[in-house]
Amino acid sequence: MATVEELKLRVRELENELIKCKQKQCAMEDAHSSELHRPKIDKMSSEVVDSNPYSRLMALKRMGIVDDYEVGKTTHSFGSGDDLPVLTPILSVFAPSQLLLFDYDKVELANMNRLFFQPHQAGLSKVEAAEHTLRNINPDVSFETHNYNITTMANFTHFMERISHGGLEEGTPVDLVLSCVDNFEARMAINTACNELGQIWMESGVSENAVSGHIQLIIPGETACFACAPPLVVAANIDEKTLKREGVCAASLPTTMGVVAGILVQNVLKYLLKFGTVSYYLGYNAMQDFFPTMAMKANPQCNDSFCRRQQEEYKKKEAERPKVEVVEEEEEAVVHEDNEWGIELVSEVTDAELQAASGTVPDLPEGITVAYTIPAECEPSGETVQETEQSLEDLMAQMRKL
Amino acid sequence: MATVEELKLRVRELENELIKCKQKQCAMEDAHSSELHRPKIDKMSSEVVDSNPYSRLMALKRMGIVDDYEVGKTTHSFGSGDDLPVLTPILSVFAPSQLLLFDYDKVELANMNRLFFQPHQAGLSKVEAAEHTLRNINPDVSFETHNYNITTMANFTHFMERISHGGLEEGTPVDLVLSCVDNFEARMAINTACNELGQIWMESGVSENAVSGHIQLIIPGETACFACAPPLVVAANIDEKTLKREGVCAASLPTTMGVVAGILVQNVLKYLLKFGTVSYYLGYNAMQDFFPTMAMKANPQCNDSFCRRQQEEYKKKEAERPKVEVVEEEEEAVVHEDNEWGIELVSEVTDAELQAASGTVPDLPEGITVAYTIPAECEPSGETVQETEQSLEDLMAQMRKL
Repeated sequence: MATVEELKLRVRELENELIKCKQKQCAMEDAHSSELHRPKIDKMSSEVVDSNPYSRLMALKRMGIVDDYEVGKTTHSFGSGDDLPVLTPILSVFAPSQLLLFDYDKVELANMNRLFFQPHQAGLSKVEAAEHTLRNINPDVSFETHNYNITTMANFTHFMERISHGGLEEGTPVDLVLSCVDNFEARMAINTACNELGQIWMESGVSENAVSGHIQLIIPGETACFACAPPLVVAANIDEKTLKREGVCAASLPTTMGVVAGILVQNVLKYLLKFGTVSYYLGYNAMQDFFPTMAMKANPQCNDSFCRRQQEEYKKKEAERPKVEVVEEEEEAVVHEDNEWGIELVSEVTDAELQAASGTVPDLPEGITVAYTIPAECEPSGETVQETEQSLEDLMAQMRKL
Repeated sequence: MATVEELKLRVRELENELIKCKQKQCAMEDAHSSELHRPKIDKMSSEVVDSNPYSRLMALKRMGIVDDYEVGKTTHSFGSGDDLPVLTPILSVFAPSQLLLFDYDKVELANMNRLFFQPHQAGLSKVEAAEHTLRNINPDVSFETHNYNITTMANFTHFMERISHGGLEEGTPVDLVLSCVDNFEARMAINTACNELGQIWMESGVSENAVSGHIQLIIPGETACFACAPPLVVAANIDEKTLKREGVCAASLPTTMGVVAGILVQNVLKYLLKFGTVSYYLGYNAMQDFFPTMAMKANPQCNDSFCRRQQEEYKKKEAERPKVEVVEEEEEAVVHEDNEWGIELVSEVTDAELQAASGTVPDLPEGITVAYTIPAECEPSGETVQETEQSLEDLMAQMRKL
């Protein structure tokens, strides 16, 4: 039987071992948490030192490319959809800002190929996983995440409410909506919401064969919305038949995603920081490294009544604008030339050629085609539809027939 | 004083607490390690299920875009330089393969803006940090890292040895060399090594103002090497004076890096998996979303004797090739048209215009300019330099004068 002395020794041994174990636990916790976070930056510094995560960007201001870098500070943008990873470079560029993320999907192992999601996040909602990863990259950004499908009625209403009131100062709208979704219904929902709210947005997409993609800037009332004209795609010179086999899952190339995401976010930056020329439509054909650009004005016969209303308001504003300002802004503004589709080419086609364009398929630059043509029964119904009565459901039902 | 019973009770308490502490420690270790790794994949599956990380890529084969996806399995490529992150999408695309990474730099907080390096890696060598991050993304890739500057003589010799013998089967050369460096000397070192070894490589770069970039495919003897012609840059319509202020650090836009890296890796994929057209030169002007392409053949008066020797060998091979094959391959081959710089434009300039090109500055497509012209004393010395006597040092000394 153990003596008191022996037991006392054992107690001391155990106490020491327990202290060591707890110390190790603390160290592990510390290591883990320091591994996951850099400290927040209280004040953006323009100091050119390697410890300043914003130093390389402040250089843009010093070089005269960006006039006012600080604008980034108050910028909040908004992302929706499958390709949240495209948002990450924005975060690394901007200072304190706010992101609203909307997505209904969960992380799968097949999503690991884009560096963004991590294996241990499998099963989490994409917005949760995205917030977690993004927060580690840039703790200076705040997040609001919504794990739902924006195309159902209740969610759509909430989605509209958050776009129009979810700005950095609660009650103000967001600065920009980014669409990175992979299906028609979600795009139409974003289009409908943005037309109603007059919210500027950027659309992006990659083709099913993963070798072409595009980005598009939509300014309600000014440039063509998603319902103004059939969606455009960049032809990749591949036999279409090989693409439409039943039961074949869409391909996905992280490289194509990367290029499209890169040009999307670059254009977001140019738009928000006011440098360079923001592309209205920029296509990408990965097979030939071909990048066609074009601009499309809004279609006066657009199916979406809110789009038509925005066009009226835009015309009024343009008419009211003092002449001097108009001249000054002309360089940056979309050039308007009428043809049946309201589609206007930037440089590849002459005005005369453009005027001559006719038929249901617009005259497009080489390499761009429409995804489909709108059948006769869906032709714009003009003034016969009352502006206030065309609901999202009506619109979607019409478009679904396509 | 404590009784035996009291001491025994205390021992039991401590033992229980210690067990709990150790259990927690194990759980933490498990959580941490599962957080960092997905299991290796023994056999590439073409099954279209979300748990297959390669499913989206195998779809490329089913769609007829890629003939033989399995080629990825035996592919090993090689990266060098500051922008290792560009390699990550390759890893996610390829099955078991091997990467050799060469870089002398350490991770700094300013490098965090590209999602790739993580805050806790600050201070680690970039190759170590890269290997760690990449291994977590794709455990099916093996790595060989070298933390040194390739431009010193001893390292250069080792670098050459590893390019020519570091293939997946030891003793065979690597499949492709990728240059993602940010300085002239490192590019010249890679150029010299690849010319001597006849190693195909791809060069990439981003301008100091961070708003333009390019990629270039160099096939020794066939297309222009880095010494054949002055480096080309994509003009960004920015006052050059603002870019050359003393002491101003180069800007860096993760978006520009992302686009250039995306088109680089996309072209690596096209090259290795044999689909689409690989661009010989593809520029990117972020200000205007302008992407000029061109092809340049090797310059018979190139300063690099190994380049000239590769040109001789290429001519011999072309001459020996049966006529039938030549016809078949003509579509994909570089078109050769002589002008002073051996620079040949793909589509924007006619043959006649090309022939008429003269002077030290080649006739280039709109938007592309040379970074500098080569001064008279550095003009190619033709046959007066003995082929075997021009060492790396000579070459570098010559180029440094520029």
